[in-house]
Amino acid sequence: MLKPESYAAGTWIAPGDAARAIHGPNDGSQIAVAGGAALDVQAMLDWARNTGGPALREMGFHDRARMLKALAGYLTERKEELYALNTLTGATRRDGAVDIEGGIGTLAVIAGKGRREMPDGQVYVDGAPEGLSRDGSFVGQHICVPLQGVAVHINAFNFPVWGMLEKLAPTLLAGMPAIVKPATQTCYLTEACFRMMIESGLLPEGAVQLVVGGVGDMLDHLGAQDVVSFTGSADTALQLRGNVNLMRNSVRFHSEQDSLNATILGPDASAGTPEFDAFIKEVSNEITTKAGQKCTAIRRILVPQSAMSDVAEALLARLSGVKVGDPSDESTRMGALASASQKADVLEKLAAFTPETRRLTGDPEDTGANPAGAYLAPTLLQCDDPDAATALHQMEAFGPVSTLMPYRDLAHATRLANRGGGSLVASLVTADADVARQVTLASAAWHGRLYIVGGANAKSATGHGAPMPHMVHGGPGRAGGGEELGGVRGVLHYMQRTAIQGSPEVIAAITGQWMPGAPTSTGPAHPFQRTFTEIAIGESLETKPRTVTLDDIEHFAHFTGDTFYAHMDEDAARANPFFPGRVAHGYLLLSFAAGLFVQPDPGPVLANTGLNGLSFQKPVSPGDSIRCRLTCARKTRRTDTYGEVAWNVTLTNQDGDQVAQYELLTMVSYDR
Amino acid sequence: MLKPESYAAGTWIAPGDAARAIHGPNDGSQIAVAGGAALDVQAMLDWARNTGGPALREMGFHDRARMLKALAGYLTERKEELYALNTLTGATRRDGAVDIEGGIGTLAVIAGKGRREMPDGQVYVDGAPEGLSRDGSFVGQHICVPLQGVAVHINAFNFPVWGMLEKLAPTLLAGMPAIVKPATQTCYLTEACFRMMIESGLLPEGAVQLVVGGVGDMLDHLGAQDVVSFTGSADTALQLRGNVNLMRNSVRFHSEQDSLNATILGPDASAGTPEFDAFIKEVSNEITTKAGQKCTAIRRILVPQSAMSDVAEALLARLSGVKVGDPSDESTRMGALASASQKADVLEKLAAFTPETRRLTGDPEDTGANPAGAYLAPTLLQCDDPDAATALHQMEAFGPVSTLMPYRDLAHATRLANRGGGSLVASLVTADADVARQVTLASAAWHGRLYIVGGANAKSATGHGAPMPHMVHGGPGRAGGGEELGGVRGVLHYMQRTAIQGSPEVIAAITGQWMPGAPTSTGPAHPFQRTFTEIAIGESLETKPRTVTLDDIEHFAHFTGDTFYAHMDEDAARANPFFPGRVAHGYLLLSFAAGLFVQPDPGPVLANTGLNGLSFQKPVSPGDSIRCRLTCARKTRRTDTYGEVAWNVTLTNQDGDQVAQYELLTMVSYDR
Repeated sequence: MLKPESYAAGTWIAPGDAARAIHGPNDGSQIAVAGGAALDVQAMLDWARNTGGPALREMGFHDRARMLKALAGYLTERKEELYALNTLTGATRRDGAVDIEGGIGTLAVIAGKGRREMPDGQVYVDGAPEGLSRDGSFVGQHICVPLQGVAVHINAFNFPVWGMLEKLAPTLLAGMPAIVKPATQTCYLTEACFRMMIESGLLPEGAVQLVVGGVGDMLDHLGAQDVVSFTGSADTALQLRGNVNLMRNSVRFHSEQDSLNATILGPDASAGTPEFDAFIKEVSNEITTKAGQKCTAIRRILVPQSAMSDVAEALLARLSGVKVGDPSDESTRMGALASASQKADVLEKLAAFTPETRRLTGDPEDTGANPAGAYLAPTLLQCDDPDAATALHQMEAFGPVSTLMPYRDLAHATRLANRGGGSLVASLVTADADVARQVTLASAAWHGRLYIVGGANAKSATGHGAPMPHMVHGGPGRAGGGEELGGVRGVLHYMQRTAIQGSPEVIAAITGQWMPGAPTSTGPAHPFQRTFTEIAIGESLETKPRTVTLDDIEHFAHFTGDTFYAHMDEDAARANPFFPGRVAHGYLLLSFAAGLFVQPDPGPVLANTGLNGLSFQKPVSPGDSIRCRLTCARKTRRTDTYGEVAWNVTLTNQDGDQVAQYELLTMVSYDR
Repeated sequence: MLKPESYAAGTWIAPGDAARAIHGPNDGSQIAVAGGAALDVQAMLDWARNTGGPALREMGFHDRARMLKALAGYLTERKEELYALNTLTGATRRDGAVDIEGGIGTLAVIAGKGRREMPDGQVYVDGAPEGLSRDGSFVGQHICVPLQGVAVHINAFNFPVWGMLEKLAPTLLAGMPAIVKPATQTCYLTEACFRMMIESGLLPEGAVQLVVGGVGDMLDHLGAQDVVSFTGSADTALQLRGNVNLMRNSVRFHSEQDSLNATILGPDASAGTPEFDAFIKEVSNEITTKAGQKCTAIRRILVPQSAMSDVAEALLARLSGVKVGDPSDESTRMGALASASQKADVLEKLAAFTPETRRLTGDPEDTGANPAGAYLAPTLLQCDDPDAATALHQMEAFGPVSTLMPYRDLAHATRLANRGGGSLVASLVTADADVARQVTLASAAWHGRLYIVGGANAKSATGHGAPMPHMVHGGPGRAGGGEELGGVRGVLHYMQRTAIQGSPEVIAAITGQWMPGAPTSTGPAHPFQRTFTEIAIGESLETKPRTVTLDDIEHFAHFTGDTFYAHMDEDAARANPFFPGRVAHGYLLLSFAAGLFVQPDPGPVLANTGLNGLSFQKPVSPGDSIRCRLTCARKTRRTDTYGEVAWNVTLTNQDGDQVAQYELLTMVSYDR
């Protein structure tokens, strides 16, 4: 008998007197006892806010990203222990991979994004600076900083591991502690994974806690710096969202709830095309994976009227081969629903669909090999008048159930897809990019994600139902209006965006990045002879000037082959609205600039790897003299031995006018 | 007698039988009658959704930006009519400038941002593409598209013009129609400005409507594609937010409500410093401008214990010179509160502050020159034990009222500032960038905006209380948790972000921008001889190859002065982790690339104005041969005669390996 424990304020708490029995869906026998212990909610919140939060915020984004990466490695080594428990939830090993390895993979991807796309510091810089005064002494910069409260994650039963990790990854990367409350039915799997995280010793004290059972009155104790992230039914969401304390304190409430996801077979994708085959495979997978218990599963199958019988026939053929049964049996393609009550709920929804549909396959009375288990056959319904239907567009049967319906033209198809009232994902199978564009313009506003495949990329595509850590997961309206993942976007949900207004010096002190107008310093040696560690933000070099002669321009033109008339023909150049006459090539200026600022000897600066945001601001005429200023703007550790140093470079002419600017990227050794 | 009208489904609707009398605050006399007509709420929503929305979405971002710019010009020409009505609200001309010209300026700035920072099309591209498959055939791209519903704007009484325009600008730029509901007390001024917009003929039918009086059951008819943007009291916000229909449909609800904004005098800014003087001026302005009726006004003045008496003395001296009275009198510095009931509300809050404070100046019994008007003297309170106080940190007296309180050290100051429970703005006056950094790390999470000035930039700074269209306006917790403005950020609140997954061809068709992997085409002539109009997205040129010799490298090194060892010294180069031996300069490659792709004769391509995202991906050794591919990625109209064409450029070596890539920016004539 499993006895999953809560983890509150650093202490493991066993099931209490009021604990609940959990019956497994494979054969109905009791597999666990959980919850029922009184938790000190306030102590948990205090531990998160006063111990976990400060410890996480003390770290920078890269520190936390490395922590998540290490955690992913730790869990990967122990994944078989999780697979063993996965079977108890009714899921096959293949289903479990989506949950377990999908969850660990999400940790790893978010960690990678943190390293690549967030700064190596405590303040995230959001967007470009804004000039707010003519003289440049007052500017604006948006930043994001971690919220100082706690994130309460309320998760659904269907992905006990992924559901926890996909919320934890962005929360911890942001620098915020979390309290995880899994659905009780499958909490033993969540608990096992959570326990590994604690045992790893990789997370600071107070960073994560676990509630097995109910959260009590926790929501009544949340405030302006806290976040609730909910995944589950619309009814529960409505109840939580309406909590007066949450509303009064504007507590962020992210919700991912019901979703009547649709798929559209493109008008071009008739039987015999690779698109048609890809469509059948995708729909069939979405019905059977996790026994259809996925918030992203396809519930409504929209196909051209003319293709209805072909699609029905092909789907029936495919579904007839699906073996339903004990998930520990290797020949099983589809396991049990999560519980008997979950099955009862699906049967109730099926009854509501009856007036609007007819059944093509799937007998609700078929209890599979074991009547004591929560088995249900893959169920395909057909609705011939989807315009008249209502239940189909509003009620989610959270199981292996989907309904086929015809559309007349693309406008009709998107109208039907949008009738879900807001969904997590809609998909389209077509080889025609113009069809993709039409569907997107008509329906993107109603769906958090649009998944579009043809025959050519069906194999490399990631699947209609798979939320990718890179892409946002969530949808408007019925789907809850929330947004998770999407790389750094998901991290920002746990941070406050603040508009900073001040002097360039102040902005630079806050962001840890130099900006034009902020003070500069001069180092004791040429910057290229200084190590990554030695180079200071704002450290600057001004070069001597170099005159650009007409000979230089001609020479460069003939050497490179760039004999554009603006450099070679005085009259033609003068006729151009940008030039006063012949001018130097932009690349000649860049090249001369490098010649001016480079220190030729071996030293810590290893390579110029690129540049950003180059703008040529004023033409340089023969006889003009340019000089160059190089200022260290930003440093980011990249490997064990070197990091990236970004330099602000400006070129000015003999009148002090800026003629070009850019950001130069270099790799620089930590040591000499 | 003013009779402001509603504008519903294209028809002006006069005040009805149940209209309400509006009494002016200057002398208490009735100035208007408003509202009381039955509006057909469903017809208004239908008109917005079915007429206004489609018309706006048919336009692109730049079309709508031009529309807003023209509107700003139209209103500017008629601003004196608005100033005439402004006086009736109790506001001085100076107060009116913030409202009227501030509002029009916001339109203009948002329009400019739309032209510069959003694409010239219907789909906003959010972030970089995400690779989702190894072979590149399946990628992700986030886009934003206009919501297909209607935005309901519920505005506060204090900024009848700015309040309307600061919400309308991002809404209309996004491509969404709006229904504006001003506070009834000052609705006649809003109506006058709204009427000008309709008379301008610049907006499409259905784009805007106006509700004078109550909105009836409008919120009960909103759905997944609609937005409510509210500005007003926390109590009203709570009531609206709890609307079950809004919650059930996850209707976006943006709220900007109460805010106990604080200002902090830095420990360095003692009497006699320019910072001290700037602080006194700012605080005094915030108390008196709009008679303190600004959601951003300073309510709590935090100063070092040692500076308390200096600050009190200086503030009293400054406030004693403030003349309160009829706002039409040019010598008046501070006008009336908006209404008698508003004054009564402030007096009630003052009474609640009494146990925690003592009054330094401002007699609540002082009714100014006219006892029939809603006048109140500038009121400065002092609280000596701010840790013990509660009302001061939780209740907003929305008038010329502020409280001075001492802090012990910076940590104490930020703790007090954060006790507001979430605010729109906090400010800090200091000359010390490190103090700025400390305060930011401790308190940015609690405030939507941090305003930091020293003595040197006090004159060029934009003011503690002034929301700038470039910066986000809104705050967490008590301030409502909403976010407005902030340039394009504010526009996205009226759009759906959707994750698109598909082939590069599909992504390109949707965004209207070419991306690597999408199909290319070959034009009938060299791209530099094609006009902006002629050049097709995806039009591409592959150049012939050029061998890079050791002579080229040496020649370039000596010509430019860039004799970095990686180009000149075989042994030293080989010791560098990035290079196999001597390699070509990156700028040599860029220069040769230009020589390869340039067409030298005059033509529509006028100039290379810059480049973005250059990365050197693989070293080029002597003897390697490079060729170049140039592909049109993006076109943006910029002036009447030319636009920007961005080209994807890749350099590959003789093995077909990519050695560099960048985006080249050019200006190209529309005509030949």
